[in-house]
Amino acid sequence: MTEKKLEQVAGNGLINRRHLLGMGLTGMGAVAGSRVLAADGSGFEIPQWSRQPGPGPSAYGAPSSHAIALQRSSGFTNPLYPGGGASRTPLQHLQGTITPNSLHFERHHAGIPDIDPAGHRLVINGLVRQPLAFSYEDLLKYPMQSHVYFLECSGNSGALLRGAQGGDVQTLHGLVSCAEWTGIQLSTLLDEAGVSDEARWVAAVGADAASMGRSLPLEKAMDDVLVALFQNGEPVRPEQGYPMRLFCPGWEGNISVKWLTQLKLTRAPAQFRDETSKYTDTLGDRRSLQFTFPMDVKSLITSPSGEMSLPGAGLYKLTGIAWSGAGSIARVEVSADGGRSWADALLESEARDKALTRFSIPWQWDGGNAVLQSRATDSAGSVQPTRDTVLTARGTLANYHNPCIQSWGVNSTGEVSNVYV
Amino acid sequence: MTEKKLEQVAGNGLINRRHLLGMGLTGMGAVAGSRVLAADGSGFEIPQWSRQPGPGPSAYGAPSSHAIALQRSSGFTNPLYPGGGASRTPLQHLQGTITPNSLHFERHHAGIPDIDPAGHRLVINGLVRQPLAFSYEDLLKYPMQSHVYFLECSGNSGALLRGAQGGDVQTLHGLVSCAEWTGIQLSTLLDEAGVSDEARWVAAVGADAASMGRSLPLEKAMDDVLVALFQNGEPVRPEQGYPMRLFCPGWEGNISVKWLTQLKLTRAPAQFRDETSKYTDTLGDRRSLQFTFPMDVKSLITSPSGEMSLPGAGLYKLTGIAWSGAGSIARVEVSADGGRSWADALLESEARDKALTRFSIPWQWDGGNAVLQSRATDSAGSVQPTRDTVLTARGTLANYHNPCIQSWGVNSTGEVSNVYV
Repeated sequence: MTEKKLEQVAGNGLINRRHLLGMGLTGMGAVAGSRVLAADGSGFEIPQWSRQPGPGPSAYGAPSSHAIALQRSSGFTNPLYPGGGASRTPLQHLQGTITPNSLHFERHHAGIPDIDPAGHRLVINGLVRQPLAFSYEDLLKYPMQSHVYFLECSGNSGALLRGAQGGDVQTLHGLVSCAEWTGIQLSTLLDEAGVSDEARWVAAVGADAASMGRSLPLEKAMDDVLVALFQNGEPVRPEQGYPMRLFCPGWEGNISVKWLTQLKLTRAPAQFRDETSKYTDTLGDRRSLQFTFPMDVKSLITSPSGEMSLPGAGLYKLTGIAWSGAGSIARVEVSADGGRSWADALLESEARDKALTRFSIPWQWDGGNAVLQSRATDSAGSVQPTRDTVLTARGTLANYHNPCIQSWGVNSTGEVSNVYV
Repeated sequence: MTEKKLEQVAGNGLINRRHLLGMGLTGMGAVAGSRVLAADGSGFEIPQWSRQPGPGPSAYGAPSSHAIALQRSSGFTNPLYPGGGASRTPLQHLQGTITPNSLHFERHHAGIPDIDPAGHRLVINGLVRQPLAFSYEDLLKYPMQSHVYFLECSGNSGALLRGAQGGDVQTLHGLVSCAEWTGIQLSTLLDEAGVSDEARWVAAVGADAASMGRSLPLEKAMDDVLVALFQNGEPVRPEQGYPMRLFCPGWEGNISVKWLTQLKLTRAPAQFRDETSKYTDTLGDRRSLQFTFPMDVKSLITSPSGEMSLPGAGLYKLTGIAWSGAGSIARVEVSADGGRSWADALLESEARDKALTRFSIPWQWDGGNAVLQSRATDSAGSVQPTRDTVLTARGTLANYHNPCIQSWGVNSTGEVSNVYV
């Protein structure tokens, strides 16, 4: 009777981590699955791969053929909207906090421009003492900064606002990723051009065929915004803005303009298409909130998650990610009973400002129905809201900025699915 | 006379960072290369890539075809030593601190075993209360930790001890990389088996055909050692030990045993081949130091570096990496006059324990001869030594553990090469 031995830290099977220790020793082998051995470690044949030399070093490595093939998933594409669309990160298969560059989510409005850096310029003009144009080579000469930051599309998790049925964590929440971004502080380049006293906004425009443009308040531009040229150590990938992108830590992804080619200092927002007809938050009375930039405190259980199947009652590790545009993650709580009771999860990675944090907690599933949830609290003291709270505040017409608690239902056959409670 | 305007912070052209500001405004356009524009930003044609939509999202991304193709470099291979060898990280082309998984250096003693996790076991036996064997699935249930750590082969930079002529930074120093490693604290698994009081060492063995084995002091095993299952968010790559490796932060790479299959608790070191005939430090009197585990404080200028060519006198950014097995990097100094004078470099990334730190400093090259060096100081107060200091301490027979200051010579034609001063 394993359950009897385990101190419950919250309802429906959430147990204390220290109960994982000694599992091999107390007849709980079935829980850990670890096998008790003869002292000489006998009973295991030497596998074939240990009997013969394998291939040597290679110029560029690849994942194991025995590991699941990690891929971004694409939504539908619209023939009237060439190059438009998104692809999502396979969060259900990743651990830790870094997203490999090939798996970082994408969102494009006119596809990926094939930019030759030799022909690309970054122009700073408008309300400046002296307009300037920088080549890629110019920018490589400036001091840079490296930070690990999350990036999240403001449309991420929007399907839950619309009551989407089913879906896995990649489809529902895969528009968030995390990488080390290396670039020049935007304030350094703005100081080069000399910002005029009357300037209040920076209009950022990309070199893609959509001329993706967003207006950035000068205060943020002079704070922690980067012109990013490198991503996890290598040049920014084409789908992330090669040769350069704006990176606005903690803010909705769309304002981190990719393929950045112009920064125009202005008195007022430029009212670009993507800050008027899109990327605004429509309220119940059909008024729209504009320029809601920061991403809210949020967390997700990534495993087990939607469309997974649990083989049977026993011990599982619940793990997931948490992040906040307002700072670092101070706490993540987990519930296995739909929010009636909560237990603190272990934070498996160091607290980093505006970066993903990994959490986990052991769960002893008794084989019955369960609803798994996580709830994050950030360093500013903000707590992740329920879906009802978000719908009450934003109405049912909202498409963007949904930080709501995700509920994963587990039924008695072990099927995990997206549910609303 | 640009040089006249610049405050020298050390000899032979090292300048204060603040002089990078305003370069576009003070007739120093030639220094920054930035172009003064008409206020409307005119004079730039809209490039072809901005005139038509590009391709949409993809399942797995790739670098830009316009960026230099980043590849690991392999040394010679020996037909009598199948699968043996190494490949090196292209440090001269990377920025920031993270090494992409496909570019992380490799070192194999019998090639890469093609391990199916379903047939792999991690056995803990020897001086334990209860021997145990863990499957991959078992281990995935344990709490994990994620940390960004460097990994360096103790043979890295050994060619400099032997007075190697020429060579680029990848060939000379490319056996160091940095990644986010996610795994289970080894102490957790050892507690599972119950370490006997008389145990002092842990003999770790890999599942490769070389049965690579190393002996690890119990104190370190119970401190910060991980059984790592993930690397930069995805499963550990085959060449890094898939499905699992030992990871001993700050210690020579060879002891972070890959394809880990056995941990045997013992009273004394096992005296494996790779801690007797290899990976020992032979002194001048032919005695050998054994078990010199920690990697010393070290730094390198990665650009400009060996076999590069500077196009002409003017402003350059000197950048590189620093790390220490004893903690974080507190300071990096740079010299452009062969060590006669030094200036503090900017640390571009946050100080992390046992991880790479990125540094940079601007350099105004006057077109004459120069010798570029960097010198790191770690949080323990240790300062990176000169080559002469290392040779005096370790003699001329040493092959491993060379943390010496690298000197890059620049001649009047702009050619950069490995020199000894």
